[in-house]
Amino acid sequence: MANPSLLILAGDGIGPEVMAEVKKIITWMGDKRGLPFDVTEDLVGGAAYDAHGTPLTDATLAKAQEVDAVLLGAVGGPKYDVLDFSVKPERGLLRLRKEMDLFSNLRPAQCFDALADFSSLKRDVVAGLDIMIVRELTSGVYFGEPRGIFKEGNERVGINTQRYTESEIARVARSAFELARRRNNKVCSMEKANVMESGILWRDVVTEVHQKDYQDVELSHMYADAGAMQLCRWPKQFDVIVTDNLFGDLLSDAAAMLTGSLGMLPSASLGAPMANGRPKAMYEPVHGSAPDIAGQGKANPIACILSFAMALRYSFDLGDEATRVESAVEKVLADGVRTADLLGPEGGSPISTSAMGDAILAAL
Amino acid sequence: MANPSLLILAGDGIGPEVMAEVKKIITWMGDKRGLPFDVTEDLVGGAAYDAHGTPLTDATLAKAQEVDAVLLGAVGGPKYDVLDFSVKPERGLLRLRKEMDLFSNLRPAQCFDALADFSSLKRDVVAGLDIMIVRELTSGVYFGEPRGIFKEGNERVGINTQRYTESEIARVARSAFELARRRNNKVCSMEKANVMESGILWRDVVTEVHQKDYQDVELSHMYADAGAMQLCRWPKQFDVIVTDNLFGDLLSDAAAMLTGSLGMLPSASLGAPMANGRPKAMYEPVHGSAPDIAGQGKANPIACILSFAMALRYSFDLGDEATRVESAVEKVLADGVRTADLLGPEGGSPISTSAMGDAILAAL
Ligand SMILES: CC(C)[C@H](C(=O)O)[C@@H](O)C(=O)O
Ligand SMILES: CC(C)[C@H](C(=O)O)[C@@H](O)C(=O)O
Repeated sequence: MANPSLLILAGDGIGPEVMAEVKKIITWMGDKRGLPFDVTEDLVGGAAYDAHGTPLTDATLAKAQEVDAVLLGAVGGPKYDVLDFSVKPERGLLRLRKEMDLFSNLRPAQCFDALADFSSLKRDVVAGLDIMIVRELTSGVYFGEPRGIFKEGNERVGINTQRYTESEIARVARSAFELARRRNNKVCSMEKANVMESGILWRDVVTEVHQKDYQDVELSHMYADAGAMQLCRWPKQFDVIVTDNLFGDLLSDAAAMLTGSLGMLPSASLGAPMANGRPKAMYEPVHGSAPDIAGQGKANPIACILSFAMALRYSFDLGDEATRVESAVEKVLADGVRTADLLGPEGGSPISTSAMGDAILAAL
Repeated sequence: MANPSLLILAGDGIGPEVMAEVKKIITWMGDKRGLPFDVTEDLVGGAAYDAHGTPLTDATLAKAQEVDAVLLGAVGGPKYDVLDFSVKPERGLLRLRKEMDLFSNLRPAQCFDALADFSSLKRDVVAGLDIMIVRELTSGVYFGEPRGIFKEGNERVGINTQRYTESEIARVARSAFELARRRNNKVCSMEKANVMESGILWRDVVTEVHQKDYQDVELSHMYADAGAMQLCRWPKQFDVIVTDNLFGDLLSDAAAMLTGSLGMLPSASLGAPMANGRPKAMYEPVHGSAPDIAGQGKANPIACILSFAMALRYSFDLGDEATRVESAVEKVLADGVRTADLLGPEGGSPISTSAMGDAILAAL
């Protein structure tokens, strides 16, 4: 059988630096665990725009459609702020999500014990926190038509459309229920059904899917504003949260920040199974391209490394290998190894991006 | 000159209980400060539905349009969950906002010193916090057309429309800049201009208004997801935040929860000036109708009382009287007077809604 294939799109800013550390782990997997991957690399975001005038070429997209999993670094940077909306780095990312139909975005919000004091929240509120936000990623206001800025009389009007079909809601609901079964068996669905009809449909369809196939999972519903509140108040009340593209964007970022482990958090974006049974998939850190520290060897590669661990688990059914990587990360943190972003107000001496990668390798 | 006029819409759940305490303060203002108000009362939300089959009658709306200020308690309750979307209690509130054209919703997120330990955030992150979220309240996805649940082929599709005109954005931006001038002179505008064209227009118009008339105010822009993060990380970086209806709903609720003072937070919804120079206005607590404790005399009336203080300041230009009420509240808190919601894990004996109102009256 052919080796599993990976496409690495390191992207912009700190993307290439953190991805370099992931490549070390991939090589280690081949050499030491007998799990070789076929790796190809390509450009996305600003880097692709610089080379080709577009944040994602058709050729790169075609490759992404063929491989078993895409590993993405980060996109964007101030240099590209002046570009037209249609060729901004973000469009490359959004096109990948849409064309690969990666409808289920898994965003764990997890608090690493060694970092609990980094949270702006009190230790007891976040210590041990481990929730999973499942964000719908291919529809909603991100992609709905009509959209644009139009002239109406003598003024401009900005329009976007929130749009969800029954089947779009049902499939992401299913993925949340499936995930909950492998966790603590609880799903909370969030929308604004008190204000938006698309939220009413969301709530109805989630309820129907639950009734039909997942009655063993505990389901609750919450308005998204109350959800934002409850995440800030007592996040441990949740297990799996399922919500739409836009609410998921805000809520998962808030949840990530609450953990105090922002530079640590990975994500997986999954689609339908391919012919080989593996889901279409892309893995990326939750943090952005951090242009302010790019190129300085300061970035924390852990979120990107943990994204690869998610790939092992969700694309290649190598849960044990994923746990191996995750445990190595925890060990390194427990040993006090810190990149600059992980130093508290007390200070200390930070190590570089590549030294962090090496420390994790050593712990493996 | 006629007395200033108030319409009290106590609404549902704890609304009537907390409003009863506000009425004591209103009476006190007439008796002791020589500031009599003409007060009328009417129904809204579920209470109006029970009496008239609609959450807001045309007659009540007509009264709201005529008075100097509306004081609203809270709407909603589980009893009304089965009602059709079009007659749910919330529709009464949304119709008031829309028909009175109350485009500028002021939501202070303030941490009361005596309550700082109630926050799930660390004391130094929230102590002394005093920010103001200005939420656009009459447009966006709350009111945009088309909207509804439609049949497409053999499945349903839920649609809502985010829609902002240039003038809708400009007027709420102005109100934020004006407010900032009376505070710390800083405005941060939040949208998703990286994904939504309506966000691009939002950013452009806010920038234009700033350039034209408010260059003395410091203006920054932030994507709403990053805004949610930064609110959780270090809220004191903000002074005034201006954002759209839906982002404002989530962000202001998160901010309110962060303060630990949720039962304490008031809000003002302001429109254009009327013939007498006063703005169209409605004042309401940020908390909801709390059906679980309704009718038990347990509710905290402070948010509702502070909403009346906002009325004194923003509708009647009685800033000194507003400060008087606010100081009385702070004194009572400093003295350790507590309703049930203000008791920490250590416990203590709570006083009733009306005893809290009386304590504030005594402090006045
Ligand atoms: C970069 C941006 C387009 C993206 C989004 O809004 O989805 C990001 O915030 C995210 O959450 O992955
Ligand atoms: C009750 C509901 C319709 C309302 C809203 O979504 O605006 C509430 O959450 C608020 O923030 O005032």
